[in-house]
Amino acid sequence: MIFKTPTQYFLVSGASDGFTPLNAFDGALLRAGIGNTNIVKMSSIVPPRCQLIAPVPLPPGALVPTAYAALTSDVPGEIISAGVAVALPEDENQNGLIMEYSAKEERRKIEETVRNMAVEGMKLRGWPIKELKSIGIEYKVKKVGAVLAAVVLWD
Amino acid sequence: MIFKTPTQYFLVSGASDGFTPLNAFDGALLRAGIGNTNIVKMSSIVPPRCQLIAPVPLPPGALVPTAYAALTSDVPGEIISAGVAVALPEDENQNGLIMEYSAKEERRKIEETVRNMAVEGMKLRGWPIKELKSIGIEYKVKKVGAVLAAVVLWD
Amino acid sequence: MIFKTPTQYFLVSGASDGFTPLNAFDGALLRAGIGNTNIVKMSSIVPPRCQLIAPVPLPPGALVPTAYAALTSDVPGEIISAGVAVALPEDENQNGLIMEYSAKEERRKIEETVRNMAVEGMKLRGWPIKELKSIGIEYKVKKVGAVLAAVVLWD
Repeated sequence: MIFKTPTQYFLVSGASDGFTPLNAFDGALLRAGIGNTNIVKMSSIVPPRCQLIAPVPLPPGALVPTAYAALTSDVPGEIISAGVAVALPEDENQNGLIMEYSAKEERRKIEETVRNMAVEGMKLRGWPIKELKSIGIEYKVKKVGAVLAAVVLWD
Repeated sequence: MIFKTPTQYFLVSGASDGFTPLNAFDGALLRAGIGNTNIVKMSSIVPPRCQLIAPVPLPPGALVPTAYAALTSDVPGEIISAGVAVALPEDENQNGLIMEYSAKEERRKIEETVRNMAVEGMKLRGWPIKELKSIGIEYKVKKVGAVLAAVVLWD
Repeated sequence: MIFKTPTQYFLVSGASDGFTPLNAFDGALLRAGIGNTNIVKMSSIVPPRCQLIAPVPLPPGALVPTAYAALTSDVPGEIISAGVAVALPEDENQNGLIMEYSAKEERRKIEETVRNMAVEGMKLRGWPIKELKSIGIEYKVKKVGAVLAAVVLWD
């Protein structure tokens, strides 16, 4: 194995306005509590027996594998939302599945869609679901806004 | 060195329809045999003396550095293709080069293009090519489809 | 911690024409001195006490966490630029912040913008800035061109 397989995970979300789209994204990461780490985007599995924990402070600058949905907009007044869902299998030897979704819709819809996506993904695997978790966030853009919902893997 | 340099690699491809573009991509990863791992996208080198192996089952949830081409489409009947090529140097102290390409064309054309891209990349380095490998996949979209061709690095 | 936190970093930039946009990007990476490594994109922190070094040759095929801005264009004669800025805090227990920006403008403007982005990001954290570094590159496209500016983390 090249990288150590993560053993813990947590869900976070955040939203922010900013000077540019990237500054707004940075602000959303900060609100989510992961703005001072190095997020490495990955697709999108919770390893078997990986434990859900409450969000913890991460060492500044650490490289952190993360599955996330994000969206930025520079249209004042626009609603933007992002959500992630985690479907965990009944069989603890199998992995869980993370899905990500973002759109210019209200949080309720985004979170419903991303939960359905995770359910469909487990159906495709033929694995009964033990538990379905999700987190979503909605934001009304002031000038340049960003939303972020993330599953952070950790050890 | 921060990460261990990979010592093995293999080529895979897959295609699938799905509930959303991300579900179709998940299905394509599953067909390719890497759907239960955490793919970390990277650009695009085969380390010196890295060995080609047959695709192996990877530990579920492992973090796996991968160079890939992918494409999704929600136009029923549309043809989508993805390909990757690996050019290996004569001098085994030098690294190989991976190129990725995808488009709404047939597999044959995509694979020809991506092979040419790898040849051009080695020309730019001034390194004679010992071997050129590639893999490609073509898919006719039913409702929402995805194709994926990948070089997976492993250890 | 899953990955070791990097202890060194350096700034590089490059530009190139190429056979395709990806070949041009590969050429820009080569000019920047990081074309034979596996770049893993990350967001965008310099760990506390991480040391600025002069660019060093990296082991071929190594996995290298990098924050970068890049842009490609296939419009002959077009000007494309990319820049990155690093803002370092007065308090050495805090991390630095990297910002990335690219656009079809001259280097001077891109570098000014990206420096402002880094300043804004530190303002958002409420951290006084000790030092602000940046690198930028401008390129006039021949047929298919790419520019890249990057902060490479290393150990």
